[in-house]
Amino acid sequence: MARPRKLKKQRPQVRILFGSVYPLGPGKASLIEAVGRTGSISAAARELGMSYRRAWQLIDATNKYFRQPLVETATGGRGGGGATVTSFGEEVLDRFRTIEAKAVASVDRDITEFERYLADEPSG
Amino acid sequence: MARPRKLKKQRPQVRILFGSVYPLGPGKASLIEAVGRTGSISAAARELGMSYRRAWQLIDATNKYFRQPLVETATGGRGGGGATVTSFGEEVLDRFRTIEAKAVASVDRDITEFERYLADEPSG
Repeated sequence: MARPRKLKKQRPQVRILFGSVYPLGPGKASLIEAVGRTGSISAAARELGMSYRRAWQLIDATNKYFRQPLVETATGGRGGGGATVTSFGEEVLDRFRTIEAKAVASVDRDITEFERYLADEPSG
Repeated sequence: MARPRKLKKQRPQVRILFGSVYPLGPGKASLIEAVGRTGSISAAARELGMSYRRAWQLIDATNKYFRQPLVETATGGRGGGGATVTSFGEEVLDRFRTIEAKAVASVDRDITEFERYLADEPSG
């Protein structure tokens, strides 16, 4: 049986939608940050509990939304080559995290109030 | 061939994530507002260009995240019964739209600056 997911007491996050797409969201940002820390897509995928394939697809999709790639991969070499976050990628991530924090801070109190509308656990 | 989606010049929206779930997002909010306007899930689904089944699923999922239902359906009667937004639902929607507007306003300028990182059209 799946453990019920608690809706409350979780730090709210914010996603910025451009039209109907998310060029970057909290999940993709965490993945790219993990690539920066670990120097490889497979290690980053492991850290976030997702498949290499899924991680690669997310990074590839994100790269395409931007003027320049956020992550670059080196093929070949020992261990199949690593991955690095470009300086453009660092700048984009930094801006994104700033926007996220600012948006959350602006509605922090409203969200706490909104939480009283939520069920303790999703029913059904 | 699919028309390329322009990333820019679209009004940014904000989604508030509670943990890993969205009890309510811009799409669900628009759907529920359409139910309020049209008095039926099928008419709301048509208005938003989605199947009745999809609309019903979204509404059902949303209802379960909250203490009380946001939408109530009446079965039977002419036309198979209609659907109404409850007063609880109206209150939740109102709060949600306020939070959304406030969050967007707080990062409006930052998002405009962020847009210069985006490709004119997603490549690939």
